[in-house]
Amino acid sequence: MRRYHHDMQQILINGHWADSSASADGFQGIDPSSGETRDPVFPCSNWKDLDSMAEAAMAASLHPANAEPDRIGRFLELFADRLDGMRADIALVAHEETGLPLETRLAQIEFGRMLGQLREAAKAARDVSATSWRAPLIDEASGIRSDLGPLGGAVLTIGPNNFPLAFHAVSGGDFAAAIAAGNPVIAKGHPLHPETGSMLARCAAEAVAEAGLHPATVQYFHQCEPEDGLRLVADPRIAAVGFTGSREAGLSIKAAADASGTPCFLEMSSVNPVFILPSALAERGDQIGGGWAASLLMGTGQFCTKPGIAIVVGDGADAFVEAAKSSLREAAPGVLFSAAGVDRLASGIDAVEAAGAVLRCGGASVSPGSRFEPTLLEVDGDDFLKSFEELSQELFGPVGLVVRAGDLDEASRIALRFDGQLTATMYTGGDDDTDWNALEPILRVKCGRLIENKMPTGVAVVPSMVHGGPFPATGHPGFTAVGLPTSVHRFAMARCWDGVASGRLPAWLR
Amino acid sequence: MRRYHHDMQQILINGHWADSSASADGFQGIDPSSGETRDPVFPCSNWKDLDSMAEAAMAASLHPANAEPDRIGRFLELFADRLDGMRADIALVAHEETGLPLETRLAQIEFGRMLGQLREAAKAARDVSATSWRAPLIDEASGIRSDLGPLGGAVLTIGPNNFPLAFHAVSGGDFAAAIAAGNPVIAKGHPLHPETGSMLARCAAEAVAEAGLHPATVQYFHQCEPEDGLRLVADPRIAAVGFTGSREAGLSIKAAADASGTPCFLEMSSVNPVFILPSALAERGDQIGGGWAASLLMGTGQFCTKPGIAIVVGDGADAFVEAAKSSLREAAPGVLFSAAGVDRLASGIDAVEAAGAVLRCGGASVSPGSRFEPTLLEVDGDDFLKSFEELSQELFGPVGLVVRAGDLDEASRIALRFDGQLTATMYTGGDDDTDWNALEPILRVKCGRLIENKMPTGVAVVPSMVHGGPFPATGHPGFTAVGLPTSVHRFAMARCWDGVASGRLPAWLR
Repeated sequence: MRRYHHDMQQILINGHWADSSASADGFQGIDPSSGETRDPVFPCSNWKDLDSMAEAAMAASLHPANAEPDRIGRFLELFADRLDGMRADIALVAHEETGLPLETRLAQIEFGRMLGQLREAAKAARDVSATSWRAPLIDEASGIRSDLGPLGGAVLTIGPNNFPLAFHAVSGGDFAAAIAAGNPVIAKGHPLHPETGSMLARCAAEAVAEAGLHPATVQYFHQCEPEDGLRLVADPRIAAVGFTGSREAGLSIKAAADASGTPCFLEMSSVNPVFILPSALAERGDQIGGGWAASLLMGTGQFCTKPGIAIVVGDGADAFVEAAKSSLREAAPGVLFSAAGVDRLASGIDAVEAAGAVLRCGGASVSPGSRFEPTLLEVDGDDFLKSFEELSQELFGPVGLVVRAGDLDEASRIALRFDGQLTATMYTGGDDDTDWNALEPILRVKCGRLIENKMPTGVAVVPSMVHGGPFPATGHPGFTAVGLPTSVHRFAMARCWDGVASGRLPAWLR
Repeated sequence: MRRYHHDMQQILINGHWADSSASADGFQGIDPSSGETRDPVFPCSNWKDLDSMAEAAMAASLHPANAEPDRIGRFLELFADRLDGMRADIALVAHEETGLPLETRLAQIEFGRMLGQLREAAKAARDVSATSWRAPLIDEASGIRSDLGPLGGAVLTIGPNNFPLAFHAVSGGDFAAAIAAGNPVIAKGHPLHPETGSMLARCAAEAVAEAGLHPATVQYFHQCEPEDGLRLVADPRIAAVGFTGSREAGLSIKAAADASGTPCFLEMSSVNPVFILPSALAERGDQIGGGWAASLLMGTGQFCTKPGIAIVVGDGADAFVEAAKSSLREAAPGVLFSAAGVDRLASGIDAVEAAGAVLRCGGASVSPGSRFEPTLLEVDGDDFLKSFEELSQELFGPVGLVVRAGDLDEASRIALRFDGQLTATMYTGGDDDTDWNALEPILRVKCGRLIENKMPTGVAVVPSMVHGGPFPATGHPGFTAVGLPTSVHRFAMARCWDGVASGRLPAWLR
């Protein structure tokens, strides 16, 4: 007998909200500030659901209307407008599901970022100029023309827990970029904010219909078993994957995508090292320490750009450490996204302590719900290098590790040990030019964004932003996940027309 | 006791030609037109050789001179000039090692292409303008700047057997692009033209010294055991891999690179389907058939863009087949690169016949050396679809398969079955617009270059060329291996500077 919850939510297949064909029990969201289960029940889709979506997406990818730049742009604008009309409702649900502050974080900052990205993507979609992401090139002499265009199949988007709006699989940066390039999207919701995702997807479906795109241009499911998800990743109807999340999940997706030759854009983990050079430390160590603590606490330490490890170089680190500790002690325990996240964080801190770091403050979970104390850890540079693997792991929450490096030589050896990062930062003072010059060549190629005298947690949506970096921060160092129109490049293929009659060419290549 | 051939050739490590540390016997080249072994003995490098190169390359990647655009450009120009000075000698050895025609193929066409690419790459290296491959972006308001730049480590280049000059690992397109982006290169020679490679590498080493780049900017070895090569691919000091060759070798390199998160650009195999639509077939089937045969024979059928499979749509295919057969019968047996290649081709033809294709002419190897008869195979569309995997394999040599499709519907089903290709071609006549429109959306996303009324074997080096395509033609659909400056993008990372003082920025971002 089929067990099916009486108010099981539906999934979006080929323009219709329909029952999942999965017969298993679904799952429910949780309010992490109280630990209480939320009402709606969401299905965990099976392969039949995913297969139907892939089939419909192939039809969408061949649909003439989906090749019209203006129509794609119109969809993105209509979608943004509909979201804006639902702003208060959506932001409230996102707040309840994630514990992130409603004002100004969700309702203003992240909502505005989401809308801004969709509208920037609309501009990118409409732009067929020589300077657009399409990069049209015409060689009259040879009759050879090229551009960038859609991949021919669906882009599968899988979003993270930490930005339920601006990085959501059905409304965030990957979605906007994939759609702008002309691809249909199959979006997977996140189990820690399923109701938010449903509301976003409803707006998307309505906008698809109003814009007159193929109904399978946007499809949406809430969750699936990992083996079905990996099967979808490797399916030939999936032309590319955009993922933001944990390294563990990202690497399993990458393995499936690599085996099938599917382009796969991952944003995984990063500890975003911050080096405080000797002059900066001497001149304003306390101020930088306080700023570091504030940056650690943003989003309860659950930002991908959290500056998790601060390397203080030379003497005079005490003022930095004291200021950071004082700020962290004064801050209230923050709400993490889930009880599992609290457990992972606690065991991560245990592992770091076992490897030689000393707890300076915090370190414990707090009731009610999924709360954790702001936490400071400290270790000598020598010990850090000895147990680098254990001590350099990402701790996803309001936790920072100070590494006391004896001198620049030790700091250089530390810099060389880091693998690919989203960001690397140096704080400089009056006499730090030589030290900058020594560290810069090392750090430059280890991160997407190199920062001076600023914490990395702000990720401005400007064309010159690079939210990327070498593996394992991402899956490919040549791309960015934030910043339009550059982020569109991930979901486009290089296309060439050779000797093709003018009437058969895209308008921008004639 | 160490066995070491008395005249064993040396390898290029960190600016010096040195003995390989490998103790095993080396290998010798073969003249494929006679089957005779050539004199020089080349070492098969061991891990110690490769490890030394990787270490030296890391130093080169951090060397200030290697960050100077003009110096890199100067090296590429000096290298091209030195090669040009050795043109007659190098082309002659390449001819003897490969059996490819000296005039005009090697000494003029391919040599000129190699020099042209290096000189175009020099221009790309020097170009720091807003429209250059560096894509500099400056956002004054936020203080955020970005560009594309070197990867931080060596690019490992591995070239194919079929273009001993213009695609050579130490002088070809991948080399030129990797150097232009500012990366040091470790180049692996090809065992079927080892002396050619040595001569090219000598010119490169001299030009590196004259330009004042770090001596490890270009390093070169002749051969290695597969396990050592794959270890090098996965080594963290290798920042990217550029490979052109067989699908089998490419997939093993891809697996190693994927596991270590190393960007890997492959150009593997392609059958480059050509669809002759009904009007074209009726109007000029014989002419197209003759042109197809001529294209099949270029480079003795060993071009990556060889149009291996012709799908003739509708009635009236006889004139096409007769013209092709007549041209192939008249042509002399061509020299393949190796006896192993002859064996692979013969067994490939056997497999295609076993799967239902009928031999119309040729099909046999010929003495002396590694020669093979121009060969025509034919199959019905119905049978082709039934045994698609067996019949659609790449046959590397002067062999073509005609597929007789009953109608456009069958042709569409055939088009849908192909996986990623470098090229796809349609020949059209007066009434073929509807058929073009039906096939174009299918073929557009399956190939890098879509061609009308022209055979695919010419790959012009123009900025709008795309020599690429979806997997398994290449490893990533977003890039091209031919065409400057676009081919440089493969070997560059996205770099961002946030709040960094002006004096610390690259000149083009100030």
